[in-house]
Formats: sequence, structure tokens, C-alpha cells
Amino acid sequence: MTLPKKEKFVIPEGTIYLDGNSLGPLPADVPAHVATVVADQWGANLIKGWNVDKWMAQPTRVGDRIGRLIGAPEGTVVMGETLSLKVYQALSAALQMRPDRKVVLSDSGNFPTDLYMADGLIKQLDKGHELRVVAPEDVAGAIDETVAAVMITQVDYRTGRTHDMRALTEAAHEAGAVMIWDLAHSAGALPVDMEASGAEFAVGCTYKYLNGGPGAPAFIYVRPDIVNDIKPALAGWLGHEAPFAFDMDYRPGTGIERMRVGTPPVLQLSALEKALEVWDDVDMEELRAASIALSEQFIKEVEASCPDLTLASPRDPALRGSQVSFHFENGYAAMQALIARGVIGDFRAPDIMRFGFTPLYLDAGDVTQAVEILSEILRDRLWDTPEYTTRKRVT
Amino acid sequence: MTLPKKEKFVIPEGTIYLDGNSLGPLPADVPAHVATVVADQWGANLIKGWNVDKWMAQPTRVGDRIGRLIGAPEGTVVMGETLSLKVYQALSAALQMRPDRKVVLSDSGNFPTDLYMADGLIKQLDKGHELRVVAPEDVAGAIDETVAAVMITQVDYRTGRTHDMRALTEAAHEAGAVMIWDLAHSAGALPVDMEASGAEFAVGCTYKYLNGGPGAPAFIYVRPDIVNDIKPALAGWLGHEAPFAFDMDYRPGTGIERMRVGTPPVLQLSALEKALEVWDDVDMEELRAASIALSEQFIKEVEASCPDLTLASPRDPALRGSQVSFHFENGYAAMQALIARGVIGDFRAPDIMRFGFTPLYLDAGDVTQAVEILSEILRDRLWDTPEYTTRKRVT
Repeated sequence: MTLPKKEKFVIPEGTIYLDGNSLGPLPADVPAHVATVVADQWGANLIKGWNVDKWMAQPTRVGDRIGRLIGAPEGTVVMGETLSLKVYQALSAALQMRPDRKVVLSDSGNFPTDLYMADGLIKQLDKGHELRVVAPEDVAGAIDETVAAVMITQVDYRTGRTHDMRALTEAAHEAGAVMIWDLAHSAGALPVDMEASGAEFAVGCTYKYLNGGPGAPAFIYVRPDIVNDIKPALAGWLGHEAPFAFDMDYRPGTGIERMRVGTPPVLQLSALEKALEVWDDVDMEELRAASIALSEQFIKEVEASCPDLTLASPRDPALRGSQVSFHFENGYAAMQALIARGVIGDFRAPDIMRFGFTPLYLDAGDVTQAVEILSEILRDRLWDTPEYTTRKRVT
Repeated sequence: MTLPKKEKFVIPEGTIYLDGNSLGPLPADVPAHVATVVADQWGANLIKGWNVDKWMAQPTRVGDRIGRLIGAPEGTVVMGETLSLKVYQALSAALQMRPDRKVVLSDSGNFPTDLYMADGLIKQLDKGHELRVVAPEDVAGAIDETVAAVMITQVDYRTGRTHDMRALTEAAHEAGAVMIWDLAHSAGALPVDMEASGAEFAVGCTYKYLNGGPGAPAFIYVRPDIVNDIKPALAGWLGHEAPFAFDMDYRPGTGIERMRVGTPPVLQLSALEKALEVWDDVDMEELRAASIALSEQFIKEVEASCPDLTLASPRDPALRGSQVSFHFENGYAAMQALIARGVIGDFRAPDIMRFGFTPLYLDAGDVTQAVEILSEILRDRLWDTPEYTTRKRVT
């Protein structure tokens, strides 16, 4: 394999795309595949598609593909709905496993929906659980024997700061807590080894580094030795042992199948399944090295030419994911000016300009060009026009 | 409008499709629209699609389109995930509304996943709730002041038997219970008037009569006077008052927005959104009359030419949805033989041959032809070969 493999992606002319950490670009083979699924599967095979086109097995088949990217054995990952729902499934299962403990430990670097879903679950259970949110650097020290579950996003969505998966999982297990990892900014960005980590659960989304498309479904990993003890809170028919027996009583399916809920989103899963083929010959260590080279270059060039920007990400690349963020008080306007000139990053409140480096479709020339455009915007205050300073909806 | 509008659908040559109650066929305009969304929205606009292509508003925009088909006012329907999840949201909200009552009443004609989700929720709440399942004809009589929620699928998925939405909702309300309707086999099949019914909740799927495609997302309706009191159990970030403020604390959004959970499945929603345009000039009363005409014709012709089949659906068309079922002990094999000859219905255990009549793309000639093929299969025992009698996976 050689990186980048730009020919595998559709990047619009004149665009340098530094937002694959938010929504991955369109893989070149996806449009034809989606068209085939729509016309030749749904259109031609109608209801028979569930069997002849193997739609019913898509959630585990695609799950296995993702498993290979996160060090998860076959049959331990399944797709469905959204990351929020997967967090809910993992956390409700974790709390079942530790009925005598009442603390869910997370950190302030977690993506808000993980905290919201935990809060919603805790209120619903109404059994005195507490969501304890500490600073990222305080997580390890806050794990004690009151903690039922440690629920952490490995890579901070704003700064790219990473947690040490092995060390934190070990600390959780030493205290008897269940470990849940959110891999939203890890899967496809870093080497991840779920099996070696020993963590009980991992969840993640597939529309970022995995390029599955807007609204691509989420995944959940469950450690295989515990999965058959889980009583699913979301006891949907496709997680049933025999969905098409249409029994009145729920009996959970075997293994990861029990984490399925409802009818799989075949069109989204098909786009994702094709998008994942890009990864077939990618070595995650090589990708990681290339990502670090790009981000190190970016930091160096930005710091040399953009004195107004302050690094918001860890300086040590070993402690960063595949993104780099800078503080700038006029970051919102500067990002709008940058996007208008074809360099697409994004902005996160209050003052963070965020840039993702994805070696699948970026090279050193792109980085240099992006920094040149950015430094010109800052030097000439090109961001300082009402067009950019008037805040619109930010996604 | 004139029915059918066959030119609006892709029906493969030689196929008579009587399974729109399971998966609607491909609307003719959908492939080009999906291709546009993939290439010209995702491909060209990348992350900007959330704003410029209005993806973020899709769940309520499409919800409003469905609202028009089920008599729900603007702003009372939103799309997301699957029907199982929508059942869970509705039931957990209903149980919050009646904290002193412990019975969830449903019937044995409900689709199993509704019962499974209720069971999973009850076990998770662990507050002594009971799922009481009675025969369909006993529901009204079983509603008493212990019942927190009545959770009923209007049209039986096997027989097409309907419940009287107005009468049952009234009975529930008289006893102080909350009413939840599952419209899986109603939306797009029958005139439904949620507003007039007074029911608190309705849920439904969109891959059947609404032709949204395999895995199309589900919808939920909440009566507008109660929605702002709901504390969502699935407290996802897109149901937050200000998702892009990335606050640490969850504050539910206003109105139906709070029933959103995670990132919307843009590709599925786009297919559905285009599919719903077929309905723009459809009068539901006219559609219902055409559906009854087709099903009455089918029953009459089957009973005249297929003596081995016994009607499993109510004989009175006013008590049936848009499908007709027959008992036949060799129904599985007979359905395989029928499908092999281009007449696609489906089979539901133990002995039900199920046929859906969708006047959007079926006419009287199709019905006559389908019955001719069926009667030949039965008369000549064409089903009696190992190819058809050996049971394969049924979907």
C-alpha cells in the first residue's frame, strides 16, 4: 500500500479537506454500489433482497469489517442505529453487571451525547446512580470501588487529546469497574486493539474516519466472554434468538446478535460496506505514522506563519489523535474565511479551529497549501468581514 | 389523481407484487434522487451538506410529510432509527406520565418487537410493571384503572384485522390510561386521523406502504399538548435544545425535536423523502376504497377457485387493513411456488399466506392474474416438490 490513495476518494477540485474527523469524503466506488443496491437489489429483488442480497446479515458482516480495524475478533461487533443508542446499550449492560455500584465515571472531554445518554439512563433507572464527570487527567485517580462503569471517549473531539486505552482499562478492572470506550475519533484514525485492551465494551460511529456517509450507522463491540450474560435493555426483534418465529416472548440471540434491535438501514449499510473496502490493504501502523507526519508538519508550519494561533492539542503526537486544534479568539470567522477558500476544517466553541489529518487522501503538499491560505487570512485579516463574523448555525 | 399510478414505481417485468405490506417497491424517482444526494450533496458539499442541503432538518421535514398522511399537525412527527426504538420512546414517556399505574396493556395481535421492547423496558425499570397481553377482542374490556398505557398495533400483521382507533383511544382515556398506536400497517394503507383520535402517541415504519426502502427510518408522533412535559429516556444530543452548544448538561429541545436522538440517516431519509412525493396527490379515502375493491375481488376469486384456502382475515372489509390472509396447511410451500411464478406475497407461521393490496401500483387485472396462478398451483399441487417444501429462512 502507498498512502495517500487519493484516487479512491471524490474530493472536489480546489478543496483541501481537513474535516474527515466530522464527515469523511465520498469514496469513489460508493456511488455505483449504492445505485446497484437501489436498482438491482431493492428495485429488482424487492422483499427477496433480505435473503438473496444478504441484507439480513449486513449488520454483523459489516461489523466484522470494522472489527478488523479495531482489533476485535470476528463475531464481536455489530452495526445499528446511532452512537447515542450504542452508548445506551453498553452502559445499561454495564450497570446490570455491577448492581451494587452506583457511579458512572466519565470526563469533561467526552462528547456531550455520551453524557446525555448516561444521564437519561440514570434518571430512567431511578436507582441512585450518579454520573461523575472529572477532568480528563483526573480519570485514573477517580476510579474507585464505587465505580460501576468507566465511560470514556478515547480521543477528545475538540483537542484530539488521547487516553491510554490499556492503562485506563487496567485501572478500571483493578477497581472492579466495567470499561466502555467510545471510539468515535479512534476507529480508522489510530491503531486500536480491543481484544488486547480487555475492555468489556466499545462503541463508535462510521461517518468520520471510516467514510460511511452522512448518518452511517454506529457499531458496538462486546467482549465475547460476557455477551451471553447481557439482558438487552433494547430488546428488539432482530436481537431475538429466532426473529422470524414471531414468538410472543423475547429470548436474546447468541453472542453479539443480541445487541441488534430493529430493521437494519440497508442503504446506509451498503454505502458503508463499500466504503470500508478502501481499508483492505491499509496497515494501521503505517497510517498512524503518516497521520503524525502530516499533523507535525501542520503544527510546525502554522506556528511559523500564524502567530495569533495557539496550539490547543497536545504537543506530543503520541498523545494526540488524528486531528490538530488551535485556539484563536476569532476562530469562527477565520474558519468561515478558510472554508470559503476551499480549506475545510471546522470550529468548536468557544474558540477552537479544528483540523483533521487523514492520510488516505491528504499529503504534505495539501498541508503546506492549507497553511499558506490560513496564514494569508490571518495576516491580512481576511476573516474580518460581516460575511464571516456573523455567526450562522455551526455543525 | 387516478389510481393506480404504476408509472411511478419500478415493478420488475412479470411480477405481481403483493408484498408492499412488507417492503414497498422502488418508486421510479428514487434512484436518481439518491444518486444526487450521494454525488452532489455528500460528494460535493461534504460536511457543508448538513447546512446547505438541509440534512439537519430532514427528520422533522420528512416527519411533516408523514404527518399529512396520518392526520397529524405540522411539527408533531419526527423520524429516527427504527420502530422498535420509537415504541421504547413512546412507552417510557407514557409510563412517566402515569407513575402510579403498573400495567401495560397490549394484545396478542401486536407485532412481537413491540412486546419485546415493552418487556425489556419493564425489566430495566424494575418497578413492578406488568405487560398484560390479551386477545385482540378483549382489549377494550381489559382497560381498567390499573392500566398506565394501552399499546396496540392498529392492523394485525398476520390477518389484517383492524382495531377501532377512536373507540379504543376513548376507552383508554376514560380509564385514565395513555394510548400508544403502532401504525406499521396503517400509514399509507388507511385513512388515519391522529389528531381526531386524541391518542398521545403513535409510531410507525416507512418501508412498507410508504415505500421508503429497506431499513427506512421510523416515525413517532406525540400529541403536542404533552410533548414538552416528556423527559426523554433516550436523551441524545440531537434532541437537545442546542446540540451545537456542546453543553455538558442535557436540556430537551422544544416540541417533537426532543424525540430525536442521534445523527439522522441522511441516505435513507433522502430515499424516503423522494418516495413520499408519490403521495402528494393521493386522497386517502379514494386509496382506501380502491384497496377494498382489490381485496374484495381477491377474496371472491380465491374462494371461487381455491377451495383449500380458508380466509384468515375479517370478511368485513371495514375491519381489515390493506392485506388479506388465508390459512393453508401447505402455505409455506405454496407461497414459494407462487413467488417462483412471479406473484410475490409472503408467509407467516404457522400457516398464513399473506397478500397486500396497494392500489398505488396494482389493478384488477393484476388480482385476476395472481389468482389464476395461485389456483393452478393448488389444483395441480405444483407446490409439492422438495424445492418448495424444504423450509428456508423466512423473512
